[in-house]
Amino acid sequence: MKATTELFNLSPLYTDLYQIAMGQAYLMDGTAEKPAVFDYFFRTIPFGGGYVIFAGLEPLLQSLENLQFEAEDLDYLRELGFQPDYLAFLKDFRFSGDVYSMKEGEVVFPLEPVIRVEGRLFEAQLVETLLLNLINYQSLVATKASRMRLAAGNRVLSDFGLRRAPAQGGLLAARAAIIGGFDSTSNLEAARLFGLEPAGTMAHSFIESHGEEFQAFMKFVEANPERAILLVDTYDTLRSGLPNAIRAGLEMKKKGLKLRGIRLDSGDLAYLSKKARALLDAAGLKEAKIVASNLLDEQVIRSLIEQEAPIDIFGVGTKLVTGVPDAALDGVYKLSVFDGQPRMKLSDNLTKTTLPGRKQVARFQDEQGLFMADAIQLTDEGLPERMFHPVEPGKSLDLRIYRDESLLEKVMAGGQRLKAEQSVSQIAAYTRQRLQQLPPEHKRFEFPHVYKVGLSQRLLTLRNELMEKYKEKFEGG
Amino acid sequence: MKATTELFNLSPLYTDLYQIAMGQAYLMDGTAEKPAVFDYFFRTIPFGGGYVIFAGLEPLLQSLENLQFEAEDLDYLRELGFQPDYLAFLKDFRFSGDVYSMKEGEVVFPLEPVIRVEGRLFEAQLVETLLLNLINYQSLVATKASRMRLAAGNRVLSDFGLRRAPAQGGLLAARAAIIGGFDSTSNLEAARLFGLEPAGTMAHSFIESHGEEFQAFMKFVEANPERAILLVDTYDTLRSGLPNAIRAGLEMKKKGLKLRGIRLDSGDLAYLSKKARALLDAAGLKEAKIVASNLLDEQVIRSLIEQEAPIDIFGVGTKLVTGVPDAALDGVYKLSVFDGQPRMKLSDNLTKTTLPGRKQVARFQDEQGLFMADAIQLTDEGLPERMFHPVEPGKSLDLRIYRDESLLEKVMAGGQRLKAEQSVSQIAAYTRQRLQQLPPEHKRFEFPHVYKVGLSQRLLTLRNELMEKYKEKFEGG
Repeated sequence: MKATTELFNLSPLYTDLYQIAMGQAYLMDGTAEKPAVFDYFFRTIPFGGGYVIFAGLEPLLQSLENLQFEAEDLDYLRELGFQPDYLAFLKDFRFSGDVYSMKEGEVVFPLEPVIRVEGRLFEAQLVETLLLNLINYQSLVATKASRMRLAAGNRVLSDFGLRRAPAQGGLLAARAAIIGGFDSTSNLEAARLFGLEPAGTMAHSFIESHGEEFQAFMKFVEANPERAILLVDTYDTLRSGLPNAIRAGLEMKKKGLKLRGIRLDSGDLAYLSKKARALLDAAGLKEAKIVASNLLDEQVIRSLIEQEAPIDIFGVGTKLVTGVPDAALDGVYKLSVFDGQPRMKLSDNLTKTTLPGRKQVARFQDEQGLFMADAIQLTDEGLPERMFHPVEPGKSLDLRIYRDESLLEKVMAGGQRLKAEQSVSQIAAYTRQRLQQLPPEHKRFEFPHVYKVGLSQRLLTLRNELMEKYKEKFEGG
Repeated sequence: MKATTELFNLSPLYTDLYQIAMGQAYLMDGTAEKPAVFDYFFRTIPFGGGYVIFAGLEPLLQSLENLQFEAEDLDYLRELGFQPDYLAFLKDFRFSGDVYSMKEGEVVFPLEPVIRVEGRLFEAQLVETLLLNLINYQSLVATKASRMRLAAGNRVLSDFGLRRAPAQGGLLAARAAIIGGFDSTSNLEAARLFGLEPAGTMAHSFIESHGEEFQAFMKFVEANPERAILLVDTYDTLRSGLPNAIRAGLEMKKKGLKLRGIRLDSGDLAYLSKKARALLDAAGLKEAKIVASNLLDEQVIRSLIEQEAPIDIFGVGTKLVTGVPDAALDGVYKLSVFDGQPRMKLSDNLTKTTLPGRKQVARFQDEQGLFMADAIQLTDEGLPERMFHPVEPGKSLDLRIYRDESLLEKVMAGGQRLKAEQSVSQIAAYTRQRLQQLPPEHKRFEFPHVYKVGLSQRLLTLRNELMEKYKEKFEGG
């Protein structure tokens, strides 16, 4: 796995300039080594959905373990005018903080801390951009993938997105797709790096270069009998592609080989898949699967299944790896404690005010294990019996009837990981299990029911008191 | 530039599985070494715009030069069941094709070949995914950036997008942003790799960790006097941030230093920037710039400028690096000649039928050097005097009154680059020049005039004849 390590051997310059500039100030003014706590959380669920799948933790932890300034990094910072004392400090720097996190693959909701980083102010600040870059994108794609999984039921989903992926982002997109519920990827490098199932068919150019379609099919299956999925829309799906694929399938049968399937990449996929199924079955090729691709997303997949299109495998590209229409998760990373004191960012908009203090998230489940509510609480208080709406003062919920579970666990201490790496398939299995525990009303695409996330009494009081303190200061002045 | 090379030292497994599977068939059936020509082109302009900026050529050429199968790549392919003869062939493989391309930074339009790859069928096919991955995303971001440049006039534009970027895609996003007209990036690694101008301010956490805002400002500017841009919205922009920033600016003045600017990151940017400008000016801090950020895109920037918001520098993140709302350019890579014979992909939809033959693009300019039309022609014909609409048979345009220029030039021969690497600033200068040559009606945001792209008589005839030949075959049969 040499190459995986390289992929997450990101330079500490893989960040915003301001992190480095603030670091110089922290060092000069004596705050660099003081203890700080930062939270990663997001505010808005993309796709108008009811949940987010948290992805990207393993790559983040690998990156944090590898983080160090090389001589060439320091040379560049010297060119930019950073000071010798600071460069000497950076030379010896390794990330030595503690990381608390929800499990990768967790079903998560707005406002709750998903990762908590504790360390020296310098280091906890430095990793902000890296963390956001890795977590926001992978969580976006995993969430999108999980929606396609919900739409596709038990049909196969394969990531075909590398060609439309945001450059090297395509590698982590494939990983996130599997976490969200995809079965395989066409992306060979991602498959190798992350131990994913590689998948693929053939291109139109293969047919065109061989001129005659049946001959092209036979040449392909002779070389790749185990991957015999034939693309049938190069010239004319019903009049040329399907008859030739069936002829090839029958030829294969004679030789004791099996036509794995055919692929539709244009036209009306519902209509063509039904026609194709009927023709394949009539020819005795019942085992041949139907693969469909072409601008699929969760809505199109749902529609195809509603129309009873007999598609076995969906190949999804652009709309998976770009996470359209949102294309970003709005995750942020905010200071919540500095030097033992709770801190917050104010805003005219209460939902944009951050939550102060060192926090934990308790998830409450009913007797069937279904998720009922998440309470954000301080780490030094007991389990809350009641939680309060973060914005609407009157609303609260009695939690005593539910079973609880603490979601944030320590995954890194002093810059060292505490657990062995989770494989992508382990993470995907966890996502699958946790999504089953999420009640269906939060999973529907249209106006999903809002999952309840509240604050413990003590956290609410701390936030309100701190807010009042700031307000008095400015309104008094 | 060690690190740049690493970034484009992409494995040949950075591709779709099917390229490798087709390669095995090409080798077995004797077509692998036969000559082929592929075109890169796109069909739809994103953002409802009138043009696309072509970006990503330099990284592509670097990647092609570096492309080779390492022992670990071959081990993985062996595990997947690829055959010993094929693996032996791959072991010695280097890309030895010719590449013809438009200049990076060119203003380009749908249907016209932007890159033409000529080589052995195996190699020209193999690089499809890599090429699409690098060109589609960078062209998307460069196009988005250029729209923001059009909206921003001569204000400064800075890329702040790494935290919301699609993982490592953020590195090439910064590069593409500069090509499209941005001035700087917060992305330090991209700045180093590509020689870009790094830029940045400070985070809310800096203020919060120092508790008192004025003191925080002073600590920051003492450590970073050359980067003294102060973020003023941590507690209350008008009642706290601005007065404290002004006080800090006046303190700096006493010491012979200069407040570079203030940054607004929330609230009504038009209102707050006017207030801030007035207060800064009244305090004698006329040279302090106003930086604004927070979900900016070309429409918001245009609106702010229409409102005469005195913003000097726009920091743009999410909407730049994701290229929303489209988030993808639909570029494709299609076989056009195989073994000397023109090839094409048919479709019920004439606009999705590909153009056969080895092609060049001639751009026609008026006397002022403004772009009037592009004609796609065959390489072995003279300059066309008239071009024909690709879909509507009756429409044609007389080209004789215009000056012409051939856009595709040979940039790689036998796998070796023919020209020295272009710097990002050279490419950006070319984009700037070419956008000036594009008439304004193609640059407006609302219903831009469609730029004329046509076919030469000979190309039109070739396409129609080939199409008829296929049609007869299926309709006869």
